[in-house]
Amino acid sequence: MKTTVILVNPKYSGNLGAIARTMMNFDTYDLRIVQNKLGEKPETILNDEAFIRAVHAKEILENAKFYKTLEEASYDIDYLVATTGAVSIGDKNIKRVPMTPRELAEKSISLKGNLAIVFGREDDGLRNEDVELCDLLVSIPTCSNYPIMNLSHAVSVILYELYSISIGNAIPYDTNVKEASKEDKDILLSIFNDFVDKSLIQEHKKPICKTIFKRVISRAFVSGREANSLMCVFKDKVIGSTKNNR
Amino acid sequence: MKTTVILVNPKYSGNLGAIARTMMNFDTYDLRIVQNKLGEKPETILNDEAFIRAVHAKEILENAKFYKTLEEASYDIDYLVATTGAVSIGDKNIKRVPMTPRELAEKSISLKGNLAIVFGREDDGLRNEDVELCDLLVSIPTCSNYPIMNLSHAVSVILYELYSISIGNAIPYDTNVKEASKEDKDILLSIFNDFVDKSLIQEHKKPICKTIFKRVISRAFVSGREANSLMCVFKDKVIGSTKNNR
Repeated sequence: MKTTVILVNPKYSGNLGAIARTMMNFDTYDLRIVQNKLGEKPETILNDEAFIRAVHAKEILENAKFYKTLEEASYDIDYLVATTGAVSIGDKNIKRVPMTPRELAEKSISLKGNLAIVFGREDDGLRNEDVELCDLLVSIPTCSNYPIMNLSHAVSVILYELYSISIGNAIPYDTNVKEASKEDKDILLSIFNDFVDKSLIQEHKKPICKTIFKRVISRAFVSGREANSLMCVFKDKVIGSTKNNR
Repeated sequence: MKTTVILVNPKYSGNLGAIARTMMNFDTYDLRIVQNKLGEKPETILNDEAFIRAVHAKEILENAKFYKTLEEASYDIDYLVATTGAVSIGDKNIKRVPMTPRELAEKSISLKGNLAIVFGREDDGLRNEDVELCDLLVSIPTCSNYPIMNLSHAVSVILYELYSISIGNAIPYDTNVKEASKEDKDILLSIFNDFVDKSLIQEHKKPICKTIFKRVISRAFVSGREANSLMCVFKDKVIGSTKNNR
């Protein structure tokens, strides 16, 4: 599936550059801009600031295509996805009940064809007629205190979801482990470090051993029982291992 | 669990403002800045540009706290999470094998205490001694063509993951449906629209009925068989419903 980003009447050049950069971060290259506000021109929005903010993704801006309507911009798109900002839970307007980016991403893996995500102007969002042209509506879950995200951040979050799913890198692992307390883990690490210090491991290798163990313990989210078992293991071995290595 | 954002020697004021904004979007308010580069001062980085970019999240900048070291900045943190940019798969350096933001978020729901995410300087990232101080290492999966994200985008993606999990809004739904072709869906929608046009539904309600149906079909990812069944339903009912409603 190919992903396209369509911006409808974007206002700030800086956002355009930041969007190009995040597109390239997430392996997305087709940028289309609908520009139909009186007096706004491609060369005005694609200015130096846009290119500076794009950093190494300038080519995406150079290849960006301009259209007069969303309909024209989406001529070859199979799934047109509108984005919207604040949507309160329990919204009475059925037209505005959106999917989450996660749901979109989960669905995207089974889709064939061209997908485009459509983003509205920074201050107004998408007009109703543009939303109605779309097949799907997506909204990023945000806090009601301040639900409106910066445009380039919104693009980044949605492309992150689509990219993560596409590379199969977003599968959560088992979370049913009841973790050891910080105190338990600190005791375990301290015992392990003593163990390393007193062992016959070459001096210059000791720091890396400690770091690896610390990281392993953190990533494994060991349980209290596991931590206690390990403490015993290393406590008992401090003298033993020294002897064995002589 | 409370989440804190720690920036180590951030360089650009604009990023600082954008970070404050995305923090508030994702219900995160505690910003700490480690500043120990010669000649850099809180008042220089927290300038007008930072406050403009923060938009409605200026209070987060006003309340940001400055520290000389990461150790001082994390005095009350139970889980200190380092972030890193490009990490190639198969990296030989074991110290640098990170979790994904999704994995961190999945784990975070079972943690109690204070979590802090630590981000390095825009051009350098975190120094090794700062990474080693941390309990966990996280990296956002990005494309190898251009793996380095804008700092505020990276903050946004990680806070999005933590926030989505915290509100339970990120559960994907079943994806095992084999979807109808675009052509099938278009025929179905066209038949449905004819049905609505010829029915005795009040004129002003017809457009919304069509829109709702279109969205329902899109969100349901109907199968070819389901689409065909629905076509028959609405084809047969066009005349019938008109009669019945008289």
